[in-house]
Amino acid sequence: MVPRRARGARCGRRRRRWSDHRSAPEPRPRAVRRLPIADLRELRRARGPRERGGARGRARCPRRGAGLKVSIAGLGLIGGSLALALKTRHRVSGFDIDASTREAALAAGVDIVGALEALLPADAVIVATPMAAIVPTLASLAQRSGAAVLLDVASVRAPVEAFAKSAPNGCRIVGLHPMAGRSGSGFAAASAKMLELRPFLVVPTVRSDTASMALAGALARDAGGEVTVCSAAQHDRIVAVLSALPLAFASALALAGAETVDGNLAALSGPGFGDSTRLALTSPDLGSAMLLANARNVRGALERARMILDEVDRAIAAGDFAALSAILERAAQARRRLS
Amino acid sequence: MVPRRARGARCGRRRRRWSDHRSAPEPRPRAVRRLPIADLRELRRARGPRERGGARGRARCPRRGAGLKVSIAGLGLIGGSLALALKTRHRVSGFDIDASTREAALAAGVDIVGALEALLPADAVIVATPMAAIVPTLASLAQRSGAAVLLDVASVRAPVEAFAKSAPNGCRIVGLHPMAGRSGSGFAAASAKMLELRPFLVVPTVRSDTASMALAGALARDAGGEVTVCSAAQHDRIVAVLSALPLAFASALALAGAETVDGNLAALSGPGFGDSTRLALTSPDLGSAMLLANARNVRGALERARMILDEVDRAIAAGDFAALSAILERAAQARRRLS
Repeated sequence: MVPRRARGARCGRRRRRWSDHRSAPEPRPRAVRRLPIADLRELRRARGPRERGGARGRARCPRRGAGLKVSIAGLGLIGGSLALALKTRHRVSGFDIDASTREAALAAGVDIVGALEALLPADAVIVATPMAAIVPTLASLAQRSGAAVLLDVASVRAPVEAFAKSAPNGCRIVGLHPMAGRSGSGFAAASAKMLELRPFLVVPTVRSDTASMALAGALARDAGGEVTVCSAAQHDRIVAVLSALPLAFASALALAGAETVDGNLAALSGPGFGDSTRLALTSPDLGSAMLLANARNVRGALERARMILDEVDRAIAAGDFAALSAILERAAQARRRLS
Repeated sequence: MVPRRARGARCGRRRRRWSDHRSAPEPRPRAVRRLPIADLRELRRARGPRERGGARGRARCPRRGAGLKVSIAGLGLIGGSLALALKTRHRVSGFDIDASTREAALAAGVDIVGALEALLPADAVIVATPMAAIVPTLASLAQRSGAAVLLDVASVRAPVEAFAKSAPNGCRIVGLHPMAGRSGSGFAAASAKMLELRPFLVVPTVRSDTASMALAGALARDAGGEVTVCSAAQHDRIVAVLSALPLAFASALALAGAETVDGNLAALSGPGFGDSTRLALTSPDLGSAMLLANARNVRGALERARMILDEVDRAIAAGDFAALSAILERAAQARRRLS
């Protein structure tokens, strides 16, 4: 469901830059959502109150206009899942540098083109390559993106933010980061369901305008996601704490656990340890790239977590039941909002 | 399935003390399993190769002798689950100080007695009260336990170890700690399935003999568990790393996450964060008791984890992709043994 204004904006009316809406000092993500994002609001009104269970919610929403031409560069876990989720209501084409991935996607009903360049023209191109390839791919597409909005799923925004500043004037670039994943990887692990009701962070760049933001929000919702808009700086602070820190913790736990029980984890650990360390299964290359690309924020998150652990340690050292319970109670309260 | 020798030993033959089997220096848990534990070995031979899927495995094992009289003091999550798991092959009686818990257990088919004292006589009494009540309950039972083996599910062994040293000469005490749990609590959350294929740590005290160890192992297996024998010191080091550290980490993550996103975790976090912080839902009183009762080991585990996180932090600070990937790869290898 793409609001009419989003499509109209591509046809030559003055584009409002996303920065028009910015206020200083930088608000929290929730506050950002209250900024006058006319098109996203229109989208919400058009669809009525969000229902849990995206599929049912969508079915009740009358279809407006034809599907968009959505191209996807990179058909791994995230790109493949987006292709599968979006192809029911948009004309989706995809490309991947890996031939077997292209074949698997084709077999799953995704139209495949023979080269990156053939993804254009389009209404939107979603760049979903591994992180190191995202900026080069955007750079290649930006030269001749025409009316297409370039979206990218980079899990760290600073490099894209930096690239956008030097990108051609005419192109539009918006971040679209689904906070979704599983321990598998590649198209074989992709599924539309993986994206259902997951947070999609929509992140403007200096090359975003209102219409391209609305398009990103609409595609996120069409893929089953729940949209939150935040700045690149906010995004990178958030993922440092919600993605990178859990990876570092899971890895430290897995290593400390394995050395304590001589590698014999399966015989000695319960389900809690399994849950706590699941993220340690993340591909080391993917994980390292995520931690290094966001180094400053990740180190800040590690420092903050260390302070909380120090507080726990002091309460244990002092044998202070009340202080320790108070920390654990605050943590339980925070976590209950997720349950 | 209780080996004959285990029952025979209760009838007056010389009891071999567990300490007869000890060798110095203290071996790793896997090594402990290779000690000459005659009755546990007999148990393994009698049952043939362990099959995954305990129920099927058990069905093929011919039943030897009548079921035992097994009493359970405390019918919460763990005690209730043990009652449900053991009552299909043993005569199980239970007691709980909470009347509604007694009613719920009775409704689920567990025989209920009116007082702690009425749990005796029995072949085994399993003490599954909250941790603070375990030693007082053992002390009360030990005065007149007669032939009954006293088992307890304490998740920290040092206090029971200390108690056993001053316990009456005739009584037998063995730790039986199922590494199982879920976020619910009380009998309402109890289920036999929760124990299936879970590690059960069987921990001798100075008041354990070979027959009582064999009985503990047999009941653990009858409850669906996988038995590992380890010393109290080993047990407490293991749970510090595999249970207490994950709780501390989950709590620190939940707190750091919530403050970063202004409490708005549900809108912004993915499934990895949810898994990583699930243990933060542990009851603060239960968690604090576990951390404080095992303070020295837990502080050691926190210190070890901090060293690993420091290593991660140094690699990030240096922008050292190879070093960071190597750490994450070691962690992934360790975690894969659990998958």
